[in-house]
Amino acid sequence: MRDFRHDISALALNTATLGHNVAGAGAGWSPERTMDACVARGIGGIVLWRREVAGREAAVAAHARAVGIKVVGLCRAPFLVGPLAPVRRDDVVDDFRAAIDQTAELGADILTIVVGGVQPGTKGVATSLGLVAEYVATAASYAAAAGVRLALEPLHPVYGGDRSCLTTTRDALDMCDQINAENLGVAIDVYHVWWDTDLPRQLARAGRRIFGFHLCDWLAHTTDVLLDRGMMGDGVADIATIRAAVEQAGYDGMCEVEIFSATNWWKRDPAEVLDVMVERFRTVC
Amino acid sequence: MRDFRHDISALALNTATLGHNVAGAGAGWSPERTMDACVARGIGGIVLWRREVAGREAAVAAHARAVGIKVVGLCRAPFLVGPLAPVRRDDVVDDFRAAIDQTAELGADILTIVVGGVQPGTKGVATSLGLVAEYVATAASYAAAAGVRLALEPLHPVYGGDRSCLTTTRDALDMCDQINAENLGVAIDVYHVWWDTDLPRQLARAGRRIFGFHLCDWLAHTTDVLLDRGMMGDGVADIATIRAAVEQAGYDGMCEVEIFSATNWWKRDPAEVLDVMVERFRTVC
Repeated sequence: MRDFRHDISALALNTATLGHNVAGAGAGWSPERTMDACVARGIGGIVLWRREVAGREAAVAAHARAVGIKVVGLCRAPFLVGPLAPVRRDDVVDDFRAAIDQTAELGADILTIVVGGVQPGTKGVATSLGLVAEYVATAASYAAAAGVRLALEPLHPVYGGDRSCLTTTRDALDMCDQINAENLGVAIDVYHVWWDTDLPRQLARAGRRIFGFHLCDWLAHTTDVLLDRGMMGDGVADIATIRAAVEQAGYDGMCEVEIFSATNWWKRDPAEVLDVMVERFRTVC
Repeated sequence: MRDFRHDISALALNTATLGHNVAGAGAGWSPERTMDACVARGIGGIVLWRREVAGREAAVAAHARAVGIKVVGLCRAPFLVGPLAPVRRDDVVDDFRAAIDQTAELGADILTIVVGGVQPGTKGVATSLGLVAEYVATAASYAAAAGVRLALEPLHPVYGGDRSCLTTTRDALDMCDQINAENLGVAIDVYHVWWDTDLPRQLARAGRRIFGFHLCDWLAHTTDVLLDRGMMGDGVADIATIRAAVEQAGYDGMCEVEIFSATNWWKRDPAEVLDVMVERFRTVC
């Protein structure tokens, strides 16, 4: 297991953690300013959101190269199914391709996929998962040609209705098995999987198909399941044990901190959030 | 699969569905008035909460016998672990026994167990599940002597932090295997398990150890994970398929409707809620 106490170059910031503090929103930190603040602290990577870089992909990528930070990935493909997905099938396919193109333009390695909830007019997850697999299989070929890897992210079952009918690492790996594309893997997010006693077995099964590892914490008394995530150490997830299993499976990539927290962290100075994040990464992950 | 279109004697009301409209709260329906309203509609059973019958167990049981309604079960054993459980170990044991005694006094068959969340000072669910197994093993002997069956209810993983470190049917059955007591089984609640693709396999494994089956629905856009449950048919759970699998496993007991809904159903006239519940039970379950 890697030791992060003295070297945090494997730490990546997902800009969601700062409340998407990009130009024109929140405290107004641009991707460039955010990258500079990360580099100043020894943080090795950044994960950006599409709306933060739209139309400026090349410039953002150039800044990242200039200051020496890795653009780890892009969030995210469109919802493919469910009540929040585009209604027209062609719109889903087109936007999925646009997200892949944008990932390539950024020089990022990974596009994260959050699949969407239960398709309207259907019950249960089976039909929706079947539709997801079709979209992902098609996109995987397109992404391979663009040099982009796709990471299926199972979300916590609380999002099963509207955001992700894909709720477990087991289901995500089953879909990977079914599609069988070399550039398709999974993203493991502590928030989504911490409760799952089947996780160790599934991580061992995943092996090198773990394309991303996300850090945060599950607060014992979560007040808002979308925007009340905890900083590492403040909740009940056994982060160190999960990271050990992820690394035992063969993962040696970046550890991405992604904390949606309208209740707490988004209210703070972004510089303070970064400082706390670094400290917690060194000490409790 | 049983046909409920013309016979709803297998339908049971969990009084939570009426917002615990018992004497002194809400619309003020006593357990007796609630039972009468159920009998008038052909509903065959009722599930009560401890605070609704405390000190009046024998009288409530006598009324049930007199009007011909089955007291299916009692909610519930105390939280055994986690931030909401009694701090002292003896208090947990004592209250667990009191709940078993109360179940027997009511003439009810089943006491439901909601195990509680992650034990303070620990991380992840493993330690807490170990403690739960100890409490349940001890209680199972006591319950057997009282003629009471215990139903472990896995809750949706959203409750993992504070209310239930036991989050899947698989985990509940693993604990049953471990304790190996004839009067220990599981309660399957659509709200808690609808998202789980492993459910069909686990239900087949459960067989006659399914002691209870709970109906409600998961709303696609759930606004409050504690008090925004849906009426059957209003959400995305594939209720009919789950019921088919439960019955295929050998379950032929009551179907208990338990809907916590401060957002909708608790605001309505209890008589209307019962009428809608009956209609939905006939048509969408």
